Amino acid sequence: MPEQPSELSDCSSLLSRYREVRSRSERLCEPLEPEDYQLQSMPDCSPPKWHLAHSTWFFETFLLAPHVPGYRAHDPQFCYLFNSYYDAVGDRWPRPSRGLLSRPTIAEVYRYRRAVDDGLLSLLESADDRLMQTIGPLLEIGLNHEEQHQELLLTDLKHAFGLNPLHPSYAPAIDEPRIDAAPMEWDQYSAGVRRIGHDGTGFAFDNEGPRHRTYVGAFALASRPVNNGEYLRFIEDDGYARPEFWLSDGWAARRAGGWSAPMHWHRDGTSFAQFTLRGMQPLDLAEPTCHVSYYEADAYARWAGFRLPTEGEWETAAGDQPVSGNFLDTENFHPSNSGRSIYGDVWVWTASPYSAYPGYRPAAGALGEYNGKFMCNQIVLRGGSCVTPPGHVRPTYRNFFPPDARWQFSGLRLAKDLPE
Amino acid sequence: MPEQPSELSDCSSLLSRYREVRSRSERLCEPLEPEDYQLQSMPDCSPPKWHLAHSTWFFETFLLAPHVPGYRAHDPQFCYLFNSYYDAVGDRWPRPSRGLLSRPTIAEVYRYRRAVDDGLLSLLESADDRLMQTIGPLLEIGLNHEEQHQELLLTDLKHAFGLNPLHPSYAPAIDEPRIDAAPMEWDQYSAGVRRIGHDGTGFAFDNEGPRHRTYVGAFALASRPVNNGEYLRFIEDDGYARPEFWLSDGWAARRAGGWSAPMHWHRDGTSFAQFTLRGMQPLDLAEPTCHVSYYEADAYARWAGFRLPTEGEWETAAGDQPVSGNFLDTENFHPSNSGRSIYGDVWVWTASPYSAYPGYRPAAGALGEYNGKFMCNQIVLRGGSCVTPPGHVRPTYRNFFPPDARWQFSGLRLAKDLPE
Amino acid sequence: MPEQPSELSDCSSLLSRYREVRSRSERLCEPLEPEDYQLQSMPDCSPPKWHLAHSTWFFETFLLAPHVPGYRAHDPQFCYLFNSYYDAVGDRWPRPSRGLLSRPTIAEVYRYRRAVDDGLLSLLESADDRLMQTIGPLLEIGLNHEEQHQELLLTDLKHAFGLNPLHPSYAPAIDEPRIDAAPMEWDQYSAGVRRIGHDGTGFAFDNEGPRHRTYVGAFALASRPVNNGEYLRFIEDDGYARPEFWLSDGWAARRAGGWSAPMHWHRDGTSFAQFTLRGMQPLDLAEPTCHVSYYEADAYARWAGFRLPTEGEWETAAGDQPVSGNFLDTENFHPSNSGRSIYGDVWVWTASPYSAYPGYRPAAGALGEYNGKFMCNQIVLRGGSCVTPPGHVRPTYRNFFPPDARWQFSGLRLAKDLPE
Amino acid sequence: MPEQPSELSDCSSLLSRYREVRSRSERLCEPLEPEDYQLQSMPDCSPPKWHLAHSTWFFETFLLAPHVPGYRAHDPQFCYLFNSYYDAVGDRWPRPSRGLLSRPTIAEVYRYRRAVDDGLLSLLESADDRLMQTIGPLLEIGLNHEEQHQELLLTDLKHAFGLNPLHPSYAPAIDEPRIDAAPMEWDQYSAGVRRIGHDGTGFAFDNEGPRHRTYVGAFALASRPVNNGEYLRFIEDDGYARPEFWLSDGWAARRAGGWSAPMHWHRDGTSFAQFTLRGMQPLDLAEPTCHVSYYEADAYARWAGFRLPTEGEWETAAGDQPVSGNFLDTENFHPSNSGRSIYGDVWVWTASPYSAYPGYRPAAGALGEYNGKFMCNQIVLRGGSCVTPPGHVRPTYRNFFPPDARWQFSGLRLAKDLPE
Repeated sequence: MPEQPSELSDCSSLLSRYREVRSRSERLCEPLEPEDYQLQSMPDCSPPKWHLAHSTWFFETFLLAPHVPGYRAHDPQFCYLFNSYYDAVGDRWPRPSRGLLSRPTIAEVYRYRRAVDDGLLSLLESADDRLMQTIGPLLEIGLNHEEQHQELLLTDLKHAFGLNPLHPSYAPAIDEPRIDAAPMEWDQYSAGVRRIGHDGTGFAFDNEGPRHRTYVGAFALASRPVNNGEYLRFIEDDGYARPEFWLSDGWAARRAGGWSAPMHWHRDGTSFAQFTLRGMQPLDLAEPTCHVSYYEADAYARWAGFRLPTEGEWETAAGDQPVSGNFLDTENFHPSNSGRSIYGDVWVWTASPYSAYPGYRPAAGALGEYNGKFMCNQIVLRGGSCVTPPGHVRPTYRNFFPPDARWQFSGLRLAKDLPE
Repeated sequence: MPEQPSELSDCSSLLSRYREVRSRSERLCEPLEPEDYQLQSMPDCSPPKWHLAHSTWFFETFLLAPHVPGYRAHDPQFCYLFNSYYDAVGDRWPRPSRGLLSRPTIAEVYRYRRAVDDGLLSLLESADDRLMQTIGPLLEIGLNHEEQHQELLLTDLKHAFGLNPLHPSYAPAIDEPRIDAAPMEWDQYSAGVRRIGHDGTGFAFDNEGPRHRTYVGAFALASRPVNNGEYLRFIEDDGYARPEFWLSDGWAARRAGGWSAPMHWHRDGTSFAQFTLRGMQPLDLAEPTCHVSYYEADAYARWAGFRLPTEGEWETAAGDQPVSGNFLDTENFHPSNSGRSIYGDVWVWTASPYSAYPGYRPAAGALGEYNGKFMCNQIVLRGGSCVTPPGHVRPTYRNFFPPDARWQFSGLRLAKDLPE
Repeated sequence: MPEQPSELSDCSSLLSRYREVRSRSERLCEPLEPEDYQLQSMPDCSPPKWHLAHSTWFFETFLLAPHVPGYRAHDPQFCYLFNSYYDAVGDRWPRPSRGLLSRPTIAEVYRYRRAVDDGLLSLLESADDRLMQTIGPLLEIGLNHEEQHQELLLTDLKHAFGLNPLHPSYAPAIDEPRIDAAPMEWDQYSAGVRRIGHDGTGFAFDNEGPRHRTYVGAFALASRPVNNGEYLRFIEDDGYARPEFWLSDGWAARRAGGWSAPMHWHRDGTSFAQFTLRGMQPLDLAEPTCHVSYYEADAYARWAGFRLPTEGEWETAAGDQPVSGNFLDTENFHPSNSGRSIYGDVWVWTASPYSAYPGYRPAAGALGEYNGKFMCNQIVLRGGSCVTPPGHVRPTYRNFFPPDARWQFSGLRLAKDLPE
Repeated sequence: MPEQPSELSDCSSLLSRYREVRSRSERLCEPLEPEDYQLQSMPDCSPPKWHLAHSTWFFETFLLAPHVPGYRAHDPQFCYLFNSYYDAVGDRWPRPSRGLLSRPTIAEVYRYRRAVDDGLLSLLESADDRLMQTIGPLLEIGLNHEEQHQELLLTDLKHAFGLNPLHPSYAPAIDEPRIDAAPMEWDQYSAGVRRIGHDGTGFAFDNEGPRHRTYVGAFALASRPVNNGEYLRFIEDDGYARPEFWLSDGWAARRAGGWSAPMHWHRDGTSFAQFTLRGMQPLDLAEPTCHVSYYEADAYARWAGFRLPTEGEWETAAGDQPVSGNFLDTENFHPSNSGRSIYGDVWVWTASPYSAYPGYRPAAGALGEYNGKFMCNQIVLRGGSCVTPPGHVRPTYRNFFPPDARWQFSGLRLAKDLPE
């Protein structure tokens, strides 16, 4: 939720951004077969068809329904089928069963998208300044919301393809020269009271604010994420079999899940292959490690003699670095080790449980459920990944997942204390 | 498995039967959208795509692979993906996850069907008499196997469509005049040693034989299945809330499943609608009740003061009645009350647990797993249903499902003891 | 339930039998520590304290409450706590939580027993002939019921002690000379219509009748149960790893339970020790195998090239052999290979699912729930075991357990077809 | 773990404290029947017998075994049976099955206590100063550890007694005059960098340090915990049925657990009774609410328009208030509203997930598992309860439980932001 009305409330730029975001979702689906749209490989994942419909439902529910006089729902049952978790909006189809709905078909969902797009463009074109003050921020949320689902669409698809023994590729393999890993260096920061969180200028989700003071001790942050070669040494040192490195819940998750390497790694004799959105590939040791849970990231850090950074530390380090890196627009669909940015490639697990900032107030109404009600049992990740739409993240952006989640492009960056 | 070589080993009639059965499977899929092929709504059900591929795998595995010299698998991974439960053939993809395979696509599966059909037709055309002696019976099993999957394809699809809140129709509704229920009469049979089971003339599955003696007391069998009007009285008499009518395991299943009426019944105020393959319909009281578990059938019978017939009784009654009735070829896709046959409309639950007949020996090799290994914790059903392919059942045919299964077209026919 | 009033309705013999049965239950508990009375090691087992209280509740509920004018419950909550499964009697404490009730204490339960005993003895002493006609059969059921719980008390205790790493002994080890196994011979029986089931003379449970005709083909039955040496060869031939011998549900149970030998066997290098009620003992190869499930018994029989006998076959073989053998009164608490009786040592799994006999009607009222409602998903066992009270079994006695049950003293005896 | 050697390393005071703590454990068990020692009513709870044995095992393992030359374990299997979660010490009996061990009996466990006490007293009496430097701190940990188990013994027992339909009392009811609730006032605190955490003077657990800076905004803290009358208004306002007050995971926990009031509340028509260690009592509206989960505390606070305090806020407020209140020594075994202390009565849920303080390092060796490995998915509670041994807590003391835990004496104290 925006802390303040968006800068982008200028109508024509909003229109063009709307078209860009909406068309990106559909472009991302071009490689899909009709059957792929239906896939739900675990309760946490959703079918591509559902992502396309739900992000559309969001615009219909929060923009068209309240702001188009006499609006009639495209299909009254879609509100039940495509609501995700908004209790204030009403009942909904159970999340683990999203893959059981062969109807509406994907063709019908595309018609739904067209109808809502038409409705929204009409609304925008006819809106006066006063209405734009109201709907501009909502539209901005809707677009950021759809960008989040673009990332999820790809990670969910990767999960589903990854367990198919045929290992389907989302995109063709590309033959890129391997680049040696850069040495890991320590960037140092002194102690002090810092201000972190979003100050309300421009769009941000409600959980990013308010901006507030926090005390950060002297620390150092690694100049790049941990890479596969480094992580492999943890595996070879029996890291997955030594409880002394693991949180108690992590050790139980490891056992229950049978983990012995990151998700999407396949042991192949003495080496590993890695399933990617471009098919099965030999493991590149110089690439940032991804698809590890918080538990694995934390265990690795303890094994290595370091720790994960807190949110405050990461945000201090991000400071005013430019928000650039290996995002979705590179169409790598995979982390690379070519850049040196604190952004992109892999989300990094912080050491910070996802909690409300001091003074946090969720928005009124259903949109207040967007972020606030998840502030328990989750861990904050920062920085965006190779499948995050460009322009989507910020220094203050807080992503969050449960500590056992592995199907996102999640990696880690080491931190350590410095003497004060 | 055939007790003896099939009568149909004449090559041209086999060829024509092969084409007929194989094309029926595909014709049954004509109303499907691509997404429907992917649906698996519970672990006991399989996606239509899987049915089409598995029945093809059966021909490839048991006919082409052993009998075409130098045969190369159409796709070596298909054996892993489309084996159902044959341990002797090897490992297989877990049954509850059949709906997670978007690839191979349905287009690829149709190509697989074409390839195996071509291979099989070549094999048949070039087969000499000696080879036909071997492959004729296997082909006959394969065709009967595919017919079984035609029925399952429709019942599985009905289950999946039935839980979609949009209630999709497989076929358009038809407006037929309702026919009053015939009165239920008792057909009487005297006591004696009967011979039941298949005698080996013509095709039968291995579990139908050997023909053997059994003692059957004097009994009477109802002239038609229990119908919805009768079953409704059981519901209205609180039958689902009175443990005295229920087996202990049935009472637990009722509670766990929240059963208060047959599957696919939807209470609508004071009356019921019924989901059918032709969409939601008002409940026709004169129609045979279907989609009840053994537990419900047994509880109903006890409430009514009667019981279910044993296999021996049912087979005695079926005697040499003609095997005709409301089968798949009527394209009703639903039981009707127009006929008076002991066959068709609904499978009837017997009182007989599914066990080996005296002297039963499963076939050698993988096909020995077809029936024998399921002879525990299941109940025999007899007579075929409205979605059983015509010509598929016999007086000796033993269908079997666990006592809590409700998604088949399963109903009941009452029996009672007579004084000897 | 008795088919007819018991022979034993003579009051003084009933009184003496009452005292004998009731005191045996308590004598069986003499070796127990107070903590042992509380043990419930799985939902199918019950704590000794519960067995003592439940069997008492049975007399209170079915004899004192209806037949003592103005009877007031010993403790009104005991009916809730100690009802097992009688829906007609009312709600009850959940079975899997019986071990969670530290109160009433065992001392209170013994007081409960005293109070009910006193009430019952008064009732009997003051009963006239007409009342004895009514309560005699009920008392007989109650005594047989308590005898069943005496066996269960020991098998449940063995289960609980068996999983304690300290392996407590119920009774001290005894040093008996080992006896070589007798050779297994085949006793042959010709085909024909047999009459099986109880004829109503003397006490029997309702499920044993009515006596009825059944056709039994020519068969042979092994002269003794399968012994540990024979069973060991099945293990050594990889029987637990070869699906071709197993029922499908059995294979799944084996995997889920991690079975690789009978329950209570402990691999000790290359040999096995066996946990017994007299502590851990080296495996005696000549002893009848016990603590196998139906699935294991069936798999062994298939591996050996034979099969399990049906109920009809077993009862034919038992014929009029004397009902003697290694029962509870030997205080072996373990099968032995010293006798040659068809009774005692181990219950043998038959091939017969537990079903109603033709013409079976459960008793009216709550006691009708004793046996009838369990006639599904269970298998019949015959012959009694080393912990069955003497005098408890008959040729027609039908014990029943689910096919995966292993904690009873359950073994097997082979059968085979003979040419007719 | 101690940050520094304990102040109490003077031998005779240690000895007297050892005797006091050890004897208190046994005194707490005086009201128990032998069966009660065996009770484990859920996996998170342990039987009293286990608490008595495990706290003894702790002294044996961490003091006797390493420091008594040639020490032989009292029983070598006890290390397996009574290790709680120390991976570095070895395998252990599964936690959910602690209630299944009837042996060793409670008599044997008391003998184990005697033997370890004797060993420890000998060790202490013969220890020179140098050895005392080593074992003093370990002994101090062991005593604090046993004090923690004294509290758990009572909360676990209350859980088990609470679900017994007989509602046994641990102690007799006492008739105390009810006292009106004090008005709730707000104590105000200004913003600033605060130092929290233990400074190493005197005993503390390792998770309480190091002392470090944290920024705390201006806030107010309620002068007393929320009481039952206030909480009842939340219930009556349908608080348990309105998702807008609840965290998403909390809403799911509420549904799964069927929560509609705090644990141990029993609706009795329109009012409530409360199960206490002194039996079932009418609900005292002036008493602090207890047995609520973090989810309920958080939902209540949101409903009331306030929030829970952070650790930093609570510790700021506790400041140098005297550590006194309604602890275990009052033998109330229940919260009261007579005092005004920030300590005692009920642990209060903070808003702070349980995490490592900056610079935290777990101790070397097995004792490093005491606290550190649980720093995930838990929430910090502060202040001690009516069953916390006196002298056990400190301003810096951090208790922690998962957010759905309700069986502790856990309540809440409201906080709110102040303008800076």
